[in-house]
Amino acid sequence: MKNKYAIGIDIGGTNIRAAIVSNKGEIIQKIKEKSSGDIISIIYKIIGNLFSEKVAGIGFSLAGLIDYQKGSVLVSPNLPSVEGEDFVNKLGARFNVPVIIENDANAAAYGELCSGAGRNFSNFVLLTLGTGIGGGIIYNKKLMNVSAEIGHMSINAEGKKCLCGNYGCLESYASATAIISSAIDFLENGRNSILKERNNNYKNITAEEIFKAAKEGDLLSIDVFKNAGKFLGIGISNIINILSPEAVILTGGLIGAWNIYVKEAITVASERAFKHLFKRTEIIKSELMDDAGIIGAAGLVFNR
Amino acid sequence: MKNKYAIGIDIGGTNIRAAIVSNKGEIIQKIKEKSSGDIISIIYKIIGNLFSEKVAGIGFSLAGLIDYQKGSVLVSPNLPSVEGEDFVNKLGARFNVPVIIENDANAAAYGELCSGAGRNFSNFVLLTLGTGIGGGIIYNKKLMNVSAEIGHMSINAEGKKCLCGNYGCLESYASATAIISSAIDFLENGRNSILKERNNNYKNITAEEIFKAAKEGDLLSIDVFKNAGKFLGIGISNIINILSPEAVILTGGLIGAWNIYVKEAITVASERAFKHLFKRTEIIKSELMDDAGIIGAAGLVFNR
Repeated sequence: MKNKYAIGIDIGGTNIRAAIVSNKGEIIQKIKEKSSGDIISIIYKIIGNLFSEKVAGIGFSLAGLIDYQKGSVLVSPNLPSVEGEDFVNKLGARFNVPVIIENDANAAAYGELCSGAGRNFSNFVLLTLGTGIGGGIIYNKKLMNVSAEIGHMSINAEGKKCLCGNYGCLESYASATAIISSAIDFLENGRNSILKERNNNYKNITAEEIFKAAKEGDLLSIDVFKNAGKFLGIGISNIINILSPEAVILTGGLIGAWNIYVKEAITVASERAFKHLFKRTEIIKSELMDDAGIIGAAGLVFNR
Repeated sequence: MKNKYAIGIDIGGTNIRAAIVSNKGEIIQKIKEKSSGDIISIIYKIIGNLFSEKVAGIGFSLAGLIDYQKGSVLVSPNLPSVEGEDFVNKLGARFNVPVIIENDANAAAYGELCSGAGRNFSNFVLLTLGTGIGGGIIYNKKLMNVSAEIGHMSINAEGKKCLCGNYGCLESYASATAIISSAIDFLENGRNSILKERNNNYKNITAEEIFKAAKEGDLLSIDVFKNAGKFLGIGISNIINILSPEAVILTGGLIGAWNIYVKEAITVASERAFKHLFKRTEIIKSELMDDAGIIGAAGLVFNR
């Protein structure tokens, strides 16, 4: 492919972020728009603005289950307007370049491989730790073309019902949503916390507020993060036992709480995963953070 | 490789089975010995008997964690005498052919790909359902070089302690060992069953006896198999959500109980896995059964 740039576009529930990315995984020019109103029009406008003759293709990254045969989105609970939208054929016809579409966590994993924390590994698993939990699997320096819905692995056979229909999903215990809901449960049951003093309406509390309180020594907040970390550790030990990766790369808003949440996860994984496998697995931070999806989606234009 | 035969050898806890296998995955000549006494000597003798100038290499299949770099067995709870044994270098030096070593469930998965139930799929997961639960993952028509210890995926965060050190492993709920232990628990708690009438010492009961009783309508035995099937279904739904395979191929002694145990697993997986993924996943029986490991280990000589 002679053109050495691609457009990467990450469609999130809050923002649409897009960039021109080089085939070395460097961002050349980046733009961001709110993902409100007519998302499809916004997407087409952004691409129109970024496109030039130097662009070899367009890569999409978004939350949801992808139909790889059709290049469309099967299910995207947070972005229902993109379900079934035929990006691949419409944009391909308009700009006459290849268009690819990938799950956001898969794209982020590929981004970390291109120019992030995964560039020196052949086999790793990326976990996005935020409102939900997503996964992407790199094997032999390639993105695995699989769902990698690691957040929807049941780790509690008879556990909480998840929105996906399953019970006991990792996401229901280790995501920001789970952390918030667990803090609210404790507060409703009358447990003391500076969270209650600070928030008249603690039902609107955020994971950031709980983390701030934890750093100040609030015991409820520390417990909530540690408990979520324990479940994350169980998820990571399952991944280690099944996929024996060289690394598990963590990204998403929750890794700000590394010292409480992720440290607990690493301790639990060290106790639960096969020892020989755990000791060869590095558990590390993303380097690209929010840019991983854009870089990965663009990178897949060159290497799919 | 000009020679079109390889030796496949499967070292089990009870028997050592070996065969000359063609590069089409057909067994040409097969032998079986008890795996008692000096296992290493038996292995070397068997290979000496099967070896000829037509043999391109030797492939081992055995239960345990493999060190792929060194070609040795890191851990094999049922076959401690093979741990650290340097098959690869010793046999390679004696016969001057490549020697490979692979986990038994991985080898069986590759066998099913070569000439069994997996030959028409690109991506599938094999589960061995017996005393323990093992797994092997085929991706893009190749065996993934990963541990695939699917039986040691925790599906119950606070569940039973497993011999591996983890808690709530799939194997602790869905294997023959789990089925036996669950039946004994019920009997000890005084539940009625023809198992008690038939077995003075029900602590030595076998999974076959429980299955026979289930087929005769014994409610305890039916419950025990259905309950194990439910957990197998949870394990399968996790695999579907993570690896979105085209097929899950089941093998091992327990698939004799397909109509109770596996049917329940399929029902549970249909309720718990992502609907779009479940409906594209075939859940089917092994075709090669006990021969899959030998055929796969031999096949890996040609295609690793």
